Amino acid sequence: MTNFHLLARRNLLLGEGTPLFYEKPVHIVRGEGVMLYDAEGRQYVDMYNNVPCVGHTHPRVVQAMTDQAGTLNVHSRYLHEGILDYAERLLLLHDDSLTCAVFACSGTEANEVALCMAREATGGRGIICTDSAYHGNSAEVGKLTRQDRPDRADPEIRSIPFPQCYRPMGDGLSGLELTELYLAEVTAQIEDFAAKDIPFAGMLVCPLLANEGLPGIPEEFMARAANVVRAAGGLFITDEVQSGFCRTGSWWGYEVMGFVPDIVSMGKPMGNGLPLAGVVAGKELVDNYRKQTGYFNTFASSPLQAAVGMAVLEVIESEGLRENAADVGGYMRRELKQLQAECEPMGDVRGYGLFIGLEWVSDRETRTSDREGAVRIANQLKDKGFLISNAGALGNVLKIRPPLVFQRTHADSFLTAFAETVRGL
Amino acid sequence: MTNFHLLARRNLLLGEGTPLFYEKPVHIVRGEGVMLYDAEGRQYVDMYNNVPCVGHTHPRVVQAMTDQAGTLNVHSRYLHEGILDYAERLLLLHDDSLTCAVFACSGTEANEVALCMAREATGGRGIICTDSAYHGNSAEVGKLTRQDRPDRADPEIRSIPFPQCYRPMGDGLSGLELTELYLAEVTAQIEDFAAKDIPFAGMLVCPLLANEGLPGIPEEFMARAANVVRAAGGLFITDEVQSGFCRTGSWWGYEVMGFVPDIVSMGKPMGNGLPLAGVVAGKELVDNYRKQTGYFNTFASSPLQAAVGMAVLEVIESEGLRENAADVGGYMRRELKQLQAECEPMGDVRGYGLFIGLEWVSDRETRTSDREGAVRIANQLKDKGFLISNAGALGNVLKIRPPLVFQRTHADSFLTAFAETVRGL
Repeated sequence: MTNFHLLARRNLLLGEGTPLFYEKPVHIVRGEGVMLYDAEGRQYVDMYNNVPCVGHTHPRVVQAMTDQAGTLNVHSRYLHEGILDYAERLLLLHDDSLTCAVFACSGTEANEVALCMAREATGGRGIICTDSAYHGNSAEVGKLTRQDRPDRADPEIRSIPFPQCYRPMGDGLSGLELTELYLAEVTAQIEDFAAKDIPFAGMLVCPLLANEGLPGIPEEFMARAANVVRAAGGLFITDEVQSGFCRTGSWWGYEVMGFVPDIVSMGKPMGNGLPLAGVVAGKELVDNYRKQTGYFNTFASSPLQAAVGMAVLEVIESEGLRENAADVGGYMRRELKQLQAECEPMGDVRGYGLFIGLEWVSDRETRTSDREGAVRIANQLKDKGFLISNAGALGNVLKIRPPLVFQRTHADSFLTAFAETVRGL
Repeated sequence: MTNFHLLARRNLLLGEGTPLFYEKPVHIVRGEGVMLYDAEGRQYVDMYNNVPCVGHTHPRVVQAMTDQAGTLNVHSRYLHEGILDYAERLLLLHDDSLTCAVFACSGTEANEVALCMAREATGGRGIICTDSAYHGNSAEVGKLTRQDRPDRADPEIRSIPFPQCYRPMGDGLSGLELTELYLAEVTAQIEDFAAKDIPFAGMLVCPLLANEGLPGIPEEFMARAANVVRAAGGLFITDEVQSGFCRTGSWWGYEVMGFVPDIVSMGKPMGNGLPLAGVVAGKELVDNYRKQTGYFNTFASSPLQAAVGMAVLEVIESEGLRENAADVGGYMRRELKQLQAECEPMGDVRGYGLFIGLEWVSDRETRTSDREGAVRIANQLKDKGFLISNAGALGNVLKIRPPLVFQRTHADSFLTAFAETVRGL
């Protein structure tokens, strides 16, 4: 079946406009490691998918899934050791203050739990996020997304301009002055909640501001924002759906930012493609959440989730993928920065570990965003066999986020193709 | 590890009060068909779990999962035939008017999609449910749950007393008179929305009112309620998370009720334990939903969901499980009704196919509910090796809902144990 026919069938069965990547979408039929293959046998280096973090179709993960699915997979209203072993191992990877876990099936569900936990603990309702965030697709979590849609406005949700160094608020400010300016935005929202008698519950952000475009975050912003939030009686939640599980070369985004949040939500890479997500927090917070809500999730905390989640942690550790992300990611960024010298549209090269953002601009002096240019590059690289995409608040940031098994050899072949592409502009 | 230690560890790692079944919880380690086994090798006939609808650890489902997880599992922004084949097959099992599908990871997520779809299509906000419903655990869907919690009151959500024949509103009414009385409750809520300038979006119910206690539903109520809702510009949504996939001996609960809803949500049995859920509706509704929301769900519409969901449909059809549910369920109900003659607390024997509710009462004349009695029976049957539970608006309905592979021999051994238990009261 041709892609034309597949697309027509898809529009019929799943609805017009079901999201797809690339101007000419690809028809992927097989994956292995960092490689994806289309129906005609064409090979692509996957440089975008962070869900299959230990690589597509990793045999150890598939085996764990097969073994558990063939032994037992049932809901969590019976005792089962697997989920306890998994929770324990996961919690040991977190800060000592985060001692208790709640599991769910998607990042959206995890953020639902996190928001509710913060609200139940504080008795508050008001939540602060950033103005270009995405944290999930449910009605409640969706309120945190893209505050530029006024029809979604909700008095309980406030956003601040996302803190960044590339197009900062406040002309001529830098370093800690800039941090102060963004912190003042947090304080202003807290004060406005108080003025409107909306009790404050907390703040929820991706610690890397991934959807905002993975910007350079003003020094100490996250740690100090957490203090501001706590001083006002709120809780600080980090959404580690993108930043977690060694993506940055550290286990968690909050480590990169040098602070510890009160509540952490996790998702995407957690099950290497099996729907698995969760929240960790201090025991008092979780106990109170359990007590207030009686939370139960049919498919979550299952033996299957536990076995697969555990296999993912084991592979990350046994294959040294945290170290690999730091090493190969650092190499990529250094090489890309060299290329930047001769490539005007590469306004900024940013990121942490195997999570890299390239700010695409039409003018490096004025830092004018060039979304169309970024889209064109992503499509050209796809035709050369490298899958990346564009993202960010202005849609002009090339987002590079391969499975953690991405090697220097893959980086080299990408860098060659990328250099060819930008030189051919 | 003893159950005492497992429970202590669970309270530490997952939080105090994480829900468990039975006064002395069971530690299940293995499943096969309708059987579950605890850590000491004790066998239980599973008569409660509708998620493993084709049986625990069904080899064909496990094989489909293994094969697909070992080939490709990636999000839905690439073209893939598997999800189209699955959507097509699933849609062919529905009424001809339901032509388009949206996939998700849990029943909660499916009901989030369904509510949003109805609201986007009608421009309305007001939703009617019943006063003892459960449709999921997110903030928005959670508003439909247990309207007796005034702290959850939301002007956009209204409930009606759930329609039933056993403890009906209106003394001495029966048949269509009773139906009219409950329909008047729907109309009253629609009129109250109008009076308060809340535009009406529709009604969401389980077509069997499963959580309400699987009551005898007054004749034609569902079909006529759908007409009332549509006449007021709303859409009628059935939540088939419990009633779908041949549980009743029909494919869908709406067939049992003799009508066709506008939007259908599905979950639990859909993936036999893999997180898989979805919504079907007419194409215009889905197209509009896609256009308004750009809905994307990282783990949904995946090749893995498609392969496993397809295997479940194939097994249901090839093993004749719809016919089995009708046959064995009918047999069980007939036998239980015979036992009812000599068992005072069995106030009512109800249900459809392999979904049976036993109303437990302290006095059959006054129909006084006996929740404690129902809990005791469930615990005693557990000790005899049969897993059921209590549910319903008053918590006094014994809920029997085994995997669809439940056979007459299983029914016979249950009936013997059940008769022994009730005679020993």
